[in-house]
Amino acid sequence: MNQSWILNKRPSGYPQISDFKLISSDVPKLQEGEVLVESHYLSLDPYMRGRMNDTKSYVPSLKLGDIMTGEVVGKVISTKSRRINEGDFVTAHIGWQKYGKIDASSVRKIDPSLGPISTSLGVLGMPGLTAYFGFLDVCSPMPGDTVVVSAASGAVGGIVGQIAKIMGCKVIGIAGSDQKTSYCVSELNFDHVINYKTENVLNKINEYAPGGVDVYFDNVGGDISDSVMSHLSVGARIAICGQISLYNLEEPAMGARIGSTLLINQAVMRGFLVFQFKSRYQEGLDKLSEWVLDGKIKYKEDIVKGIDKVPDTFIGMMQGKNFGKLLVTFI
Amino acid sequence: MNQSWILNKRPSGYPQISDFKLISSDVPKLQEGEVLVESHYLSLDPYMRGRMNDTKSYVPSLKLGDIMTGEVVGKVISTKSRRINEGDFVTAHIGWQKYGKIDASSVRKIDPSLGPISTSLGVLGMPGLTAYFGFLDVCSPMPGDTVVVSAASGAVGGIVGQIAKIMGCKVIGIAGSDQKTSYCVSELNFDHVINYKTENVLNKINEYAPGGVDVYFDNVGGDISDSVMSHLSVGARIAICGQISLYNLEEPAMGARIGSTLLINQAVMRGFLVFQFKSRYQEGLDKLSEWVLDGKIKYKEDIVKGIDKVPDTFIGMMQGKNFGKLLVTFI
Repeated sequence: MNQSWILNKRPSGYPQISDFKLISSDVPKLQEGEVLVESHYLSLDPYMRGRMNDTKSYVPSLKLGDIMTGEVVGKVISTKSRRINEGDFVTAHIGWQKYGKIDASSVRKIDPSLGPISTSLGVLGMPGLTAYFGFLDVCSPMPGDTVVVSAASGAVGGIVGQIAKIMGCKVIGIAGSDQKTSYCVSELNFDHVINYKTENVLNKINEYAPGGVDVYFDNVGGDISDSVMSHLSVGARIAICGQISLYNLEEPAMGARIGSTLLINQAVMRGFLVFQFKSRYQEGLDKLSEWVLDGKIKYKEDIVKGIDKVPDTFIGMMQGKNFGKLLVTFI
Repeated sequence: MNQSWILNKRPSGYPQISDFKLISSDVPKLQEGEVLVESHYLSLDPYMRGRMNDTKSYVPSLKLGDIMTGEVVGKVISTKSRRINEGDFVTAHIGWQKYGKIDASSVRKIDPSLGPISTSLGVLGMPGLTAYFGFLDVCSPMPGDTVVVSAASGAVGGIVGQIAKIMGCKVIGIAGSDQKTSYCVSELNFDHVINYKTENVLNKINEYAPGGVDVYFDNVGGDISDSVMSHLSVGARIAICGQISLYNLEEPAMGARIGSTLLINQAVMRGFLVFQFKSRYQEGLDKLSEWVLDGKIKYKEDIVKGIDKVPDTFIGMMQGKNFGKLLVTFI
């Protein structure tokens, strides 16, 4: 039997357990060209919150009763494709469920001998590629630049900061607990990390970036970003990767207008999605793998066990409770 | 005798006449390398408002008692430079005064046989160059793009819209009177113009740009910009040239946060100053001159007479009372 989490109600503000519903069904039958994937790890990511709303975004929103969106890594247990064999490991967008069928052309084959398969959802998957292209392409970093990254210990932020160090930048992270800030400094070698829950972000940015912020890689938005952007250098570059502080608001977010700040600093702010760089994924994966093998990039996984835990774990992520790339394993 | 307007008090909100003071003095004596310029036209521009504040910007702010900043075009009536002769016409940043001395290396020589010297402060000067580089470089327009420009009948906006038409774009202007909107449609051949004082900008943008706004050239900021940016297309480009709606606020401007909008549209917002393109001014002037001669770019001047009128005229500009490039003539 299959088990799947569906969207039961549209959340208003933070999602509730009752917004989700676990349903059982037969394992699906395959059509020509499809494969059946048994999920080993499900990736939980902030973008999923957006899909639960009935508003315009870059992909259509979920309908009530739809299976929750998500990418998994798992084993192909049945195939009607010549490209993918039974026993192959793949990443696949089958959503929050134990088994899912999917067109073989849309899965990515993984070599499990290269490392833990879970990394294909993290440092060697979408979060890693988001960090790689979002930082190197969108932010155009130069050696010596002062780089600020929010959600600094997260799946994307942790990699951004480490790539920035590889590039010869000075890195200031922002995170939400002393455990996270210590990790960024002692394990990831960031120059400074600010605990936004206990420290004044504005004052600390002024202290740590006396010449101004050259690059801001923003995962959170809101007041934290206002503080960072009040101290930009001339020619600063801001990448908007995520705005997690705003995803669960019931009203449109209001804040300090940014136009004059961009104007006087001749600064640029760019929103991006990793899919823009699809044609260059292999370049990113090759480089990230090399850095991981060389020990230049470390990663941290936060693995929760059990399909029944998915909604709770997802809600916790929205409140910053995870520490590292958040995965749920079903087997 | 010379006459000069100085900063008498820092304004809070809209400037008042009493924030300025007209002083008389001897015509200044020249040092080696300097020229004495007799002002024929003074350019009044929104950026001057920023110089009156005591806050961080891209140039130091004026001190109380300083001569108000500004560029003039006029005649050299005395010279201690071999590069510039008596009788030459030049543009020079001598500020709000009848006569000013300035280093000869910082003036630009004008050929009065090519057209009215006043154009060197407008279409063939800083506003024209701002439109040229701000639109073509910062906005990367493509034929067929839907372009929105605010302050559409202004010194910069009117040229942006006409360059956009030359580039094969669809142009939607936003202006503040029926006289201005009619001018943009009938004289400048914009496709649509919205009167933001009498029409709902949001609804009109939806109507005129059904596929979304590809390029927004923003001179005003505030609510008008919020409406335009609520209807961006994927990959939209926003140039921040000015934010006149915010220059006279007594409190920092608050508004809808733009991060999520940029993110879901993979859009970019860039603040720029014309000085960034200094090394390419000649390219811009050559092209603009060619378009003016070919009748592809029209321009409109709003000329006020008398040095005593300068502060009043400047305050009026902040309220959108001028119609075309605003100049004050002293002779």
